[in-house]
Amino acid sequence: MPELAALIRDVADFPQPGVTFRDVTPLLADARGFARCIDALAEPWLELDVQAVCGIEARGFIFGAALAQKLGAGFVPLRKPGKLPPPVLSIDYQLEYGRDQLEVRSDALRPGERVLLVDDVLATGGTLAAAWALVQRFDAVPVGACVVVELTALQGRLRWQAREPLHSLLRY
Amino acid sequence: MPELAALIRDVADFPQPGVTFRDVTPLLADARGFARCIDALAEPWLELDVQAVCGIEARGFIFGAALAQKLGAGFVPLRKPGKLPPPVLSIDYQLEYGRDQLEVRSDALRPGERVLLVDDVLATGGTLAAAWALVQRFDAVPVGACVVVELTALQGRLRWQAREPLHSLLRY
Repeated sequence: MPELAALIRDVADFPQPGVTFRDVTPLLADARGFARCIDALAEPWLELDVQAVCGIEARGFIFGAALAQKLGAGFVPLRKPGKLPPPVLSIDYQLEYGRDQLEVRSDALRPGERVLLVDDVLATGGTLAAAWALVQRFDAVPVGACVVVELTALQGRLRWQAREPLHSLLRY
Repeated sequence: MPELAALIRDVADFPQPGVTFRDVTPLLADARGFARCIDALAEPWLELDVQAVCGIEARGFIFGAALAQKLGAGFVPLRKPGKLPPPVLSIDYQLEYGRDQLEVRSDALRPGERVLLVDDVLATGGTLAAAWALVQRFDAVPVGACVVVELTALQGRLRWQAREPLHSLLRY
């Protein structure tokens, strides 16, 4: 997808020295590029009867909400701790440096509901693996996951233990 | 919109004692309700050639991204400080207790671009007024603003000084 790749901006040394940040804001701001991106994200799942799209805070909300709309599915936000009113389910997970948490409303998904996970970037894969584990507590039916950008050098795909597909649009 | 109102959950004493939180997650999770909500948000602007939808972090990302998709517009995230790579424009504004900031990429909008602002809730109106002031620095053309929930007792609408319309779907 070279026309989409041209809309991702590389920012050196952000958020810390030595890291190259892949900034998706030019892609979002381009009406045609954003629409094409959502079309491409949706394409593998069109026939799979997705009922709920789970988007990971915060950029996963942007792609996930548009994708839910496209697929005719509901949208479930997976949030940073303390943002959702109780009762919530939460999961604690390891980051490269330190730990983080995701939370979801404890009645957000029904058993048997067909769920797709969405985030903007796949880096080390820790967040997506945690999101997957969180969704499984509902006895929902996983359909797969998708991201816009995959940073292949970080091998996040190796942490994706599910047999369901993980799709990425752009690989660096 | 009684069918949408039935999908908003009241949560007492969140995020602090004495406050009733209007939780939009049941609305988002309901595929039909979410689609109807986005249709209703879009309706007043369909003929107004909106080119960019600016959504306010974080729930404004969810409604704003789906709305941008619906209107065939680009999406511009207005973020909490430190989330966007530089260069950014930022605005500092007063909250009921303390201050907050919004940031946007310094090249996010073009002069003359037709812009719609989106957030989930209109409370005291401080955030929306700050977002409006931030957008105006680009010499963009404001079209209006919309929110899902308006808390009328807080009179946030009085802080909306623009002559362009501010629409809300549900009023409490």
